[in-house]
Amino acid sequence: MTRSGEFDLIRDVFAPLAEAPGALGLADDAALVHIPAGRELVVTADTLIEGVHFLMNDPADLIARKALRVNLSDLASKGARPDYYFLCLSLASWVDDSWLTRFGEGLAADQKSYGVSLMGGDTTATPGPLTISITAMGSVEAGRMIKRSGAHAGDLVFVTGTIGDAGAGLAVLNGASASADRGSLIRRYQLPEPRTGLGQKLVPLAHASVDISDGLMADLGHVAAASGLRIVVDAARVPLSEGVRALWGSNATAAARAATSGDDYEIAFTAPYGARGAVAALSSETGIAISEIGRVEPGEGIDLLNEAGRAMPLQSLGFRHF
Amino acid sequence: MTRSGEFDLIRDVFAPLAEAPGALGLADDAALVHIPAGRELVVTADTLIEGVHFLMNDPADLIARKALRVNLSDLASKGARPDYYFLCLSLASWVDDSWLTRFGEGLAADQKSYGVSLMGGDTTATPGPLTISITAMGSVEAGRMIKRSGAHAGDLVFVTGTIGDAGAGLAVLNGASASADRGSLIRRYQLPEPRTGLGQKLVPLAHASVDISDGLMADLGHVAAASGLRIVVDAARVPLSEGVRALWGSNATAAARAATSGDDYEIAFTAPYGARGAVAALSSETGIAISEIGRVEPGEGIDLLNEAGRAMPLQSLGFRHF
Repeated sequence: MTRSGEFDLIRDVFAPLAEAPGALGLADDAALVHIPAGRELVVTADTLIEGVHFLMNDPADLIARKALRVNLSDLASKGARPDYYFLCLSLASWVDDSWLTRFGEGLAADQKSYGVSLMGGDTTATPGPLTISITAMGSVEAGRMIKRSGAHAGDLVFVTGTIGDAGAGLAVLNGASASADRGSLIRRYQLPEPRTGLGQKLVPLAHASVDISDGLMADLGHVAAASGLRIVVDAARVPLSEGVRALWGSNATAAARAATSGDDYEIAFTAPYGARGAVAALSSETGIAISEIGRVEPGEGIDLLNEAGRAMPLQSLGFRHF
Repeated sequence: MTRSGEFDLIRDVFAPLAEAPGALGLADDAALVHIPAGRELVVTADTLIEGVHFLMNDPADLIARKALRVNLSDLASKGARPDYYFLCLSLASWVDDSWLTRFGEGLAADQKSYGVSLMGGDTTATPGPLTISITAMGSVEAGRMIKRSGAHAGDLVFVTGTIGDAGAGLAVLNGASASADRGSLIRRYQLPEPRTGLGQKLVPLAHASVDISDGLMADLGHVAAASGLRIVVDAARVPLSEGVRALWGSNATAAARAATSGDDYEIAFTAPYGARGAVAALSSETGIAISEIGRVEPGEGIDLLNEAGRAMPLQSLGFRHF
């Protein structure tokens, strides 16, 4: 590293990102976080590790944006408006000034897109892989956070966007023969698009909600468990993009693959039958597809049903961290 | 690892630590953080890395407590009451069940001591060293956080406890010939004692405050810079323990060593001359020594003065992260 150390790095790269007054220019031991009256703070934290969640040669700005966005996606699924984040950065020995500059540029771009500010954190040298831990904060109207545990029996299950694109993008990066949609699939893997705007509009509609990181089935399984109910998903209704169909096909097996591949960063939510019209209106208003894919029933567990209505055997519900 | 994975680890080790209702049993995408009316949220984050901040063979419960306490020390120096923390844990391949159990026991003990609750986080396997990032939260009466930037020219400079013990403990671990105080010096290095109670009582007294992690001189240098003033410290008044005196002596050179060795997790603060009585009363009330060590002057920078009142040349002001 040619910058003379931590203080230069903070001054040159990170202090300009500390836009909120409570960040105190990153020149204090702690930050002051303001929460408007009548709102409640929603907080989440996620770690991305070189060689596990991204590769050393991935563009630095995309790594930064992915690290931030996986957290913003959690906030989106809770109906929260994103506001602030704290960054703990463990720098591998291969990281140089130009990498850090680009990393900062990625954060700056997303701060503008999502209206968030860096508030603090820690920067340390590590003998190991580059490791990025972000704690992100947002706010919701007090008492209105959309929990995983709020599903009702009889609710319909919806999901935003398309499922499996990121998993297909990773397969393409690993050598799967790709269609013309190669670039868009890889992009879905490298750069999630958290549904922050749409998420906030789910507050009056959704009973329960989760963002899809481990896999549609795994994450809806968490909703089923937290709500003490069963969720069934129709394979034929899992929304697949043209790119995923070209790579994996469009039958139930392809849907199962998509629904267990993870990294989608879409929102899956449950809402009562009577909210169908409002959900359709929200889709029109935001321009984001929202598909009805299943329903909540008494019982427990989660199943993916084939065309015959039979539960498909799945090797796993999604990504396991270890 | 013999536990079957992340979910078992969360259920067995971490969910019991999620005592606050807003943690939602660690079973949601995010936590709800409650801040009482009239108070403001203070947030800090720090990372500890195996081989940098602790060693693989250090007791797991002490590693956990140190990781938590370095954050609580930042909150203490701001006058904040500690409330919550988020834990991002990147697990090295050598970590086993019994290590994790002991790690959780360390956190449980300190949650009881300091009145804090785990609220969330992320657990991931890493191909590198064990890495622990904690984001801690506390609260202060709105508008009353003690900043680094609040020093006034004419303020006196005070410090709690004794300085250099942790640095001497590290020297002993590295083979320095030790006195009878070997154990207590090592303990100061392995297990900081953040001044959380005392820190909250500084709110009506202190103009500026910092916790000593990098070194007394380095951290008071931050106060000087943030306040746009100069700070001078008298070497003869830097409080040294019996153990440090036995190892390093008690002259100005020993004081310089202590004042630049770091990891003290004491609080250095500035207060007006008129607060001397209140500071002495606070020391009596808490049973924690508070020493007057210097003063704030117009100008810039920080100096350690020898017996002749001359600025001592220092190789560095304290620990640099890279």
